[in-house]
Amino acid sequence: MTYSTSRPRGHLLIGQSGGATAVINASLAGAVREALASDGIDGIYGARHGIQGLLDGDLLDLRREPAATWDGLVATPSAALGSCRYRLQPDDPERALDLLRRLSVRHFLYIGGNDSADTAHRIALAARAADYDLRVVCVPKTIDNDLPGTDHCPGYGSAARFIALATMDSAMCTEAIPTHYPVKVIEVMGRDAGWLAAAAALGKEREEDAPHLIYVPERPFVPTRFLEDVRRAHERYGYVVAVVTETVRDERGQPLGAVGAQGVDAFGHQLLGGAAQALVGMVREELGLRARFDRPGDLQRMASSCVSATDRDEAYRVGGAAVRAALSGVTDKMVTLVRVLGPAYACETNLVDLDVVANEQRLLPAEYLDAEGTGVTPAFRDYALPLIGDPLPRHVRLRGVPIGQ
Amino acid sequence: MTYSTSRPRGHLLIGQSGGATAVINASLAGAVREALASDGIDGIYGARHGIQGLLDGDLLDLRREPAATWDGLVATPSAALGSCRYRLQPDDPERALDLLRRLSVRHFLYIGGNDSADTAHRIALAARAADYDLRVVCVPKTIDNDLPGTDHCPGYGSAARFIALATMDSAMCTEAIPTHYPVKVIEVMGRDAGWLAAAAALGKEREEDAPHLIYVPERPFVPTRFLEDVRRAHERYGYVVAVVTETVRDERGQPLGAVGAQGVDAFGHQLLGGAAQALVGMVREELGLRARFDRPGDLQRMASSCVSATDRDEAYRVGGAAVRAALSGVTDKMVTLVRVLGPAYACETNLVDLDVVANEQRLLPAEYLDAEGTGVTPAFRDYALPLIGDPLPRHVRLRGVPIGQ
Repeated sequence: MTYSTSRPRGHLLIGQSGGATAVINASLAGAVREALASDGIDGIYGARHGIQGLLDGDLLDLRREPAATWDGLVATPSAALGSCRYRLQPDDPERALDLLRRLSVRHFLYIGGNDSADTAHRIALAARAADYDLRVVCVPKTIDNDLPGTDHCPGYGSAARFIALATMDSAMCTEAIPTHYPVKVIEVMGRDAGWLAAAAALGKEREEDAPHLIYVPERPFVPTRFLEDVRRAHERYGYVVAVVTETVRDERGQPLGAVGAQGVDAFGHQLLGGAAQALVGMVREELGLRARFDRPGDLQRMASSCVSATDRDEAYRVGGAAVRAALSGVTDKMVTLVRVLGPAYACETNLVDLDVVANEQRLLPAEYLDAEGTGVTPAFRDYALPLIGDPLPRHVRLRGVPIGQ
Repeated sequence: MTYSTSRPRGHLLIGQSGGATAVINASLAGAVREALASDGIDGIYGARHGIQGLLDGDLLDLRREPAATWDGLVATPSAALGSCRYRLQPDDPERALDLLRRLSVRHFLYIGGNDSADTAHRIALAARAADYDLRVVCVPKTIDNDLPGTDHCPGYGSAARFIALATMDSAMCTEAIPTHYPVKVIEVMGRDAGWLAAAAALGKEREEDAPHLIYVPERPFVPTRFLEDVRRAHERYGYVVAVVTETVRDERGQPLGAVGAQGVDAFGHQLLGGAAQALVGMVREELGLRARFDRPGDLQRMASSCVSATDRDEAYRVGGAAVRAALSGVTDKMVTLVRVLGPAYACETNLVDLDVVANEQRLLPAEYLDAEGTGVTPAFRDYALPLIGDPLPRHVRLRGVPIGQ
């Protein structure tokens, strides 16, 4: 739906929503800088904690920020406006619209993922029903890379770089002393999609390099098959590094590491469990192999030392593109990245309908996983490597000539 | 004990031992380069997996490595020779000595921590008893920073940098959305010493910044006090980031997260538990606050993206210093770092007796912890900040002027 580009100017309101990323502030900075440079916008407002800030009247005047704020935020992880995980109540879209109207907001930018697209879409529908000229544009953000209609999501490239590096680095430790803990499990994020787990393989150069096994939520997790995979890999390589998405489920749809009432610690508190911990226990009990796990948790979405320059640059650009789209009269859309065919990697921005984003998830396509489903294909590497920025470091091993030869 | 610096030249044998670090290969490269440049050494041998390689005859000729190996290893985490956690059997020192003698090894360098110093010390004693001119010199290595006689240990600065950055970054995520998970626990390594947990505070600039609470193994962990600490911090700051050493123990000496026979998962496998997971459960059950945890595990010792340039440089230098010490006739010693008093940070190398290193642990001194024991003092910051290399990034926050003001 496209409105006239003429009056009214009105104000711009920006919010950040969902899990933060290392580059979501770059999108905020890109949007604000574009708005500051435009003569089509009056006030530039920020909603604290996304839609909650709008509903609660907790709004900031972003024109009052010093210019240095925007330079600094390009390199600062997390959501500077504050984020939220708020599910809209039935009358919230109308309430939000009423507040936007009273504030004379004409441009509403929402930086987030699927849930945020749903929120924005419902506000866009309310505006249309009320015939209020509001331009609602979402800016994509998620480390999960599961938004439809876009080649990839800002936030994914940096998290993927973190996971690729973490796997390379941590595996070197297991390789150096395989008799101590021959098995390592690395637990990565990913709601229903294994994009991030797959990225663990981006630093793999030889068949014997880690990761040896990757488990994604797109495939049911079969414990007996996992144990056989680990046993075989241990036999072949002398050590095993397995990467598992925290949300893998067994064939009955049960998450790994779900702990029943009997799972209590020394203080009588129930344990949370977790996929990696469950797998470590299985390996120890069933295979008699010592195992340990890394669970980087929020580090993988936040690591300022592993930001992909490409990801940061694109996050900044989609912010600016959203402002330009709103000013051009577009509404009920999300900005997308479209890969330009050619010898070198490049992306342009485009738009997709919010109802598509709100209701679809882009899972890892079958052609990016190998036949066993525990490794990635060259096609995945071609897709993902440009997203993680600078080439990964090359870890050096000894040539290793025995004495006397 | 000092031998004559005259003949015999003999060969040099180097091994790496204990948990790997991000810079232990820099020490190896520093030692090998020093040996290559010396005219006092014949063969330069590497023992695969430390003392085990010697006992098993698994030895490499390091003169056969291309020069590029040593350049590359300066930037490659983990132990390129392979490491071990092997406890000497009663007749191993004599066996090792016999093998060294047959190989005409006159210089034995061992890169490791307390246990490695113990191994090397016993071999030095065996050589002395047998009147065999063997120069045994250890190169300090441990992320735990718990070796006596040295200002600090190579490996610590890089792990400390990782933990400082991880805390800064991950905490930003909790701060941005405190209503979702108001409490975060970050679990860090440290056998009996809290040096690494203390490093979590190195990026803290204001009282309200994370980490709000640090728990080190030097102090008994009192669950009721912990819960009260968290409750108060939550009241004051709206969210809480607590950093806990994985080995904290309660007043009875019991580790947190020790799981009894009842702690089994859905597959009937016993859970390992873990300090952070136990604390997350306590916070949820006793305070009714949602909590989550990051457990970087081996990433904190291996992260190639967080290496402290100072740490890497010093790790390289102590390797070379060990070769020079051996060539000068020194034995049964470990190289140390001695801070030079002056306006700018600088360290020189020196030596300490191996029996001191083998039998003592340097814990975090009382003056580095504040009165509550859950924060660090300016004295600790002065001590540790130079070790982590480049200044930490400054995360930017919005000034945050409400609209209409």
